[in-house]
Amino acid sequence: MSRAVPLLDALADVGADRVRGGYSRHGFDRADHTLREWFTGEAEARGLDVDVDRNGNLWAWWGTPGPGAVVTGSHLDSVPGGGAFDGPLGVVSALAAVDVLRARGFDPAKPVVLVVFAEEEGGRFGVPCLGSRLLAGTLDAEHARALRDPDGVTLAEAVRATGLDPATLGRDDESLARVGCFVELHVEQGRGLVDLGAPVGVAESILAHGRWRLTLHGEGNHAGATALADRADPMLPAASLVLAARRAAASVPGARATVGRLVPTPGGTNVIPSTVDAWLDARASDGPGTRRVVEDVVAAAREAAEAEGCTLSVREESYGGTVTFDAGLREVVSGALGGVPALPTGAGHDAGVLAARVPTAMLFVRNPTGVSHAPAEHAEADDCEAGVTALARVLAHLAGSSC
Amino acid sequence: MSRAVPLLDALADVGADRVRGGYSRHGFDRADHTLREWFTGEAEARGLDVDVDRNGNLWAWWGTPGPGAVVTGSHLDSVPGGGAFDGPLGVVSALAAVDVLRARGFDPAKPVVLVVFAEEEGGRFGVPCLGSRLLAGTLDAEHARALRDPDGVTLAEAVRATGLDPATLGRDDESLARVGCFVELHVEQGRGLVDLGAPVGVAESILAHGRWRLTLHGEGNHAGATALADRADPMLPAASLVLAARRAAASVPGARATVGRLVPTPGGTNVIPSTVDAWLDARASDGPGTRRVVEDVVAAAREAAEAEGCTLSVREESYGGTVTFDAGLREVVSGALGGVPALPTGAGHDAGVLAARVPTAMLFVRNPTGVSHAPAEHAEADDCEAGVTALARVLAHLAGSSC
Repeated sequence: MSRAVPLLDALADVGADRVRGGYSRHGFDRADHTLREWFTGEAEARGLDVDVDRNGNLWAWWGTPGPGAVVTGSHLDSVPGGGAFDGPLGVVSALAAVDVLRARGFDPAKPVVLVVFAEEEGGRFGVPCLGSRLLAGTLDAEHARALRDPDGVTLAEAVRATGLDPATLGRDDESLARVGCFVELHVEQGRGLVDLGAPVGVAESILAHGRWRLTLHGEGNHAGATALADRADPMLPAASLVLAARRAAASVPGARATVGRLVPTPGGTNVIPSTVDAWLDARASDGPGTRRVVEDVVAAAREAAEAEGCTLSVREESYGGTVTFDAGLREVVSGALGGVPALPTGAGHDAGVLAARVPTAMLFVRNPTGVSHAPAEHAEADDCEAGVTALARVLAHLAGSSC
Repeated sequence: MSRAVPLLDALADVGADRVRGGYSRHGFDRADHTLREWFTGEAEARGLDVDVDRNGNLWAWWGTPGPGAVVTGSHLDSVPGGGAFDGPLGVVSALAAVDVLRARGFDPAKPVVLVVFAEEEGGRFGVPCLGSRLLAGTLDAEHARALRDPDGVTLAEAVRATGLDPATLGRDDESLARVGCFVELHVEQGRGLVDLGAPVGVAESILAHGRWRLTLHGEGNHAGATALADRADPMLPAASLVLAARRAAASVPGARATVGRLVPTPGGTNVIPSTVDAWLDARASDGPGTRRVVEDVVAAAREAAEAEGCTLSVREESYGGTVTFDAGLREVVSGALGGVPALPTGAGHDAGVLAARVPTAMLFVRNPTGVSHAPAEHAEADDCEAGVTALARVLAHLAGSSC
């Protein structure tokens, strides 16, 4: 049994998605509010002081807020129909690690801070790592305020409803200046640790990755009354785009391209759509490789659109270059754990965003199937406990000595 | 100016879809309830007695309910993001035709009945002509009660919420026995009358048509962390299916195939879907042609699914063979109008369903662009008035003499 398990169990009913399975917890929605209240209560029960920063990220301080803080945590939101571990495992492990250290009588020389970043998955407003990007200044605040969720609600409206002032969203050097280093624990998204036979590892790098929204514009009409020759059906070039994404990714070693979200409008069975929005998630080991995948997909989509009498518009919703985690901090973390394997990952994280501004490291906890972003995502209790123990050891090492 | 226009204008705000444009009015939803209340009020203001039958269809009687009734009307629901005319034009023209006949002092020898059929578009529960199919007994009541909308609400639950008893859904010979004939007025869905230079025409036939739900089952996983070789991404065979639908339809003269609704689950940008549902709308001049299109699409989808490590399941949601409208009644209607052109259509209608049980005819009103099932759907006021005048003349002819 792990100290993390009862904490995760407390969240078992929050944001459960009865249609998709798993959890749908999105930034600033009702489930998110419940999760944030829960975190605040757990932190305060441990005597930690909880602040909300200008971008909606939560900071729970063990010790006096100030520079050089040792920060740990993750996020509580999910993808639509996501698993129970992606995000929450890092938050509950941080709470459990505090318990471990407290029980041991540990008194940190530097403040230890537990952080919960807002809307890491981008499941509501489309931009992943929304809270950490705003904090780090890698997402323009004006642009962010105008982001809309699928119901047309802007981010400005959503944060205002939670009591935040949307005018103060954006780069927050004051909060960032207090971060000495950031260590994020996360369930592994892949089978790297399974293959290595290790319960815990450290992150080496993150693929360059981004999201592009490709909109095919055609002519909405009746599915029965419109002859084939009279159609400008945007679903056809959208289909070509999906197939081109796989071909393009296969042509760049190690690259990945996915169309997991595709929305025809209006979306009626007996209606030729007027538009189809397709979101392309593309990743590769470097920026040029990622750009090449996107360019190939856009070119194929444009050609297919023209053949059908449709047009294409493209918008980059987010982009982040390759992240190589701070080698010095990785050595320190790995060393504190007596040497654990280092792994690359294709998944983006708040730690990847912060890596551009502060020394950052990640701990991964073994995932027996490798499945993530799905209800089947899992980590065994023993491995979760190994994660808590490792994180406590790392925090003790970093907060008791130089970071 | 047409008598139909102020009646349509009264509905301008009901069910307006701010996201898709146009109207989203679906069976037994809030907008539908408002529309039914409005119709009941308009009918009662004209001294008509309004009944709701066991399947949620509304019948407004001018004269004593009984056999041999001359029935006219259409539907008030829409496709998602549909136009203002498809359905409502037939209902408001029926009300306006009663006004025309009343103003003329016409006293019908046979009862005249205005009907509003429930959920003609199948926009909520997937089966088009839901109310008329249940009435006519061409849709099994047990199957219908279990139909679910996208939120998981069953038809049984939805009709119960409106005060109907779901146990009494189904074939209703008593209601049908009172129908002497049915004449449905409808905006044309195509440019046949534009090409002929005629404001009004009569329907000749309807293509055989149906809806098939093809579900591709794969493995949900992380879009960044899952290597291409490890994927079973159901979006790829779904894309192949879309392209196969166009190819299959093109191989059968006059056939049409459309995928206008496609839903990946969970539908996250950074998530490989676990399933994709694609709805195939297929039509051809006869049943074998329609079946051939569907078989070709299913075969292509199955092959693409296997290549990706996915599986396919197929469910027929609705099917109706070719409809040839009653030649005798068509002659009578056309003759009453001094000879108007007859046209085939690819669009399904409640009149097509009833045609199997009672003599049925349709009047089409010219559509200047031919666009339908889209916000741009239109009919000029003068043409709407020509439709009202024509319908009044037809009703007078049928209700004053033998039907």
